[in-house]
Amino acid sequence: MVRTQLTRLPEKAVTDRAAVDALLDTARIGHVGLVADGHPLVIPTAIARLGDSVLVHGSTGSRWMRLLAGAAPACLTVTVVDGLVVARSAFESSMHYRSVVLFGSFSPVDPDEKVHALEVLIEALLPGRSREVRPSTRKELAATMVLALPIAEWSLKVSDGWPEDTPDDIAGDAWAGVLPLVERAGDPRPAPDLRGGIPVPTSVRSLANPGRTS
Amino acid sequence: MVRTQLTRLPEKAVTDRAAVDALLDTARIGHVGLVADGHPLVIPTAIARLGDSVLVHGSTGSRWMRLLAGAAPACLTVTVVDGLVVARSAFESSMHYRSVVLFGSFSPVDPDEKVHALEVLIEALLPGRSREVRPSTRKELAATMVLALPIAEWSLKVSDGWPEDTPDDIAGDAWAGVLPLVERAGDPRPAPDLRGGIPVPTSVRSLANPGRTS
Repeated sequence: MVRTQLTRLPEKAVTDRAAVDALLDTARIGHVGLVADGHPLVIPTAIARLGDSVLVHGSTGSRWMRLLAGAAPACLTVTVVDGLVVARSAFESSMHYRSVVLFGSFSPVDPDEKVHALEVLIEALLPGRSREVRPSTRKELAATMVLALPIAEWSLKVSDGWPEDTPDDIAGDAWAGVLPLVERAGDPRPAPDLRGGIPVPTSVRSLANPGRTS
Repeated sequence: MVRTQLTRLPEKAVTDRAAVDALLDTARIGHVGLVADGHPLVIPTAIARLGDSVLVHGSTGSRWMRLLAGAAPACLTVTVVDGLVVARSAFESSMHYRSVVLFGSFSPVDPDEKVHALEVLIEALLPGRSREVRPSTRKELAATMVLALPIAEWSLKVSDGWPEDTPDDIAGDAWAGVLPLVERAGDPRPAPDLRGGIPVPTSVRSLANPGRTS
């Protein structure tokens, strides 16, 4: 479809659904676009993949969630920057990134799948956390809207190559390469109201420890 | 304006323009929303702040750049995730983040400011790099469109607090706190076609070295 032809650099387009899933499973947030009062609106939101859908959640009082729940045409873009492409010229300098643009409409998840959908969302935020917290209350469930966007119409772009400098530039004196960028977790900071004797849980330790490079 | 009232959590709204600038100066990318053929479209793009504007650039052949250059109503959202808010319940769990939503229309930068605007963009990608590469050629300049969005109508949301659990949950056994997330640069990877004897430049070393925690 025309709408999914976003780029004039077709070599960067990737048609592998598994790569879409891997990106959605890596990213913590996406940016949802919708049209409100005739104007574009882009909202950042936590995301999680559940099978062939992407889940978002929010307050039942949220204006943009209500618009999405009403099947407004939507666009969800999920981007991860993996590094800097340091070319020999400004023109060729860029980033390593993965970005998927999904088109379609959100719809509320079935009521009997809502508890599971919220578990998937908390697991996407912090793997293992769903088993460390109490179940959601009926009041909490009633205050939360969970919407799903089918992974049906999408466009994935991946930039993961080396700088593509001209022969003249390659013969020059400028350095070229890639500087990888990664997300690292710092040391967990206990809440001021944390009671004594409660250890840092497995979920937090698992995410924090891979961040140590020493 | 109604369009800037995005949240039902007013305590998170920040009206400090300096905080907007700090966020725009920190983030590498933003997500541009526009309406194309009646449908929302959200595109990730490198950003840089120049005074009271946000700059984006792209190919003159890019469809979305051409739409923006035509003063299409636009929304630019720039988000940085700073950490995970690990609450005692799934319901209260969230993220530390900063997100600004800017509304307006882009317009091409003045031709006599284009060279400087591109310097600002390469400096935002990698500080110090503009002095390490050759000047852009006339052909490169002609192939590149640089657009500016005024920082005029915006909404900034910042989440940087502790978990806000109920007294019952605080009295329970679950841990609570914040797990900071930071971006780190890895080791620079020289391009396969890099000629011998060219050292890693200052710009790359400056960004890479703070990433070492050992």
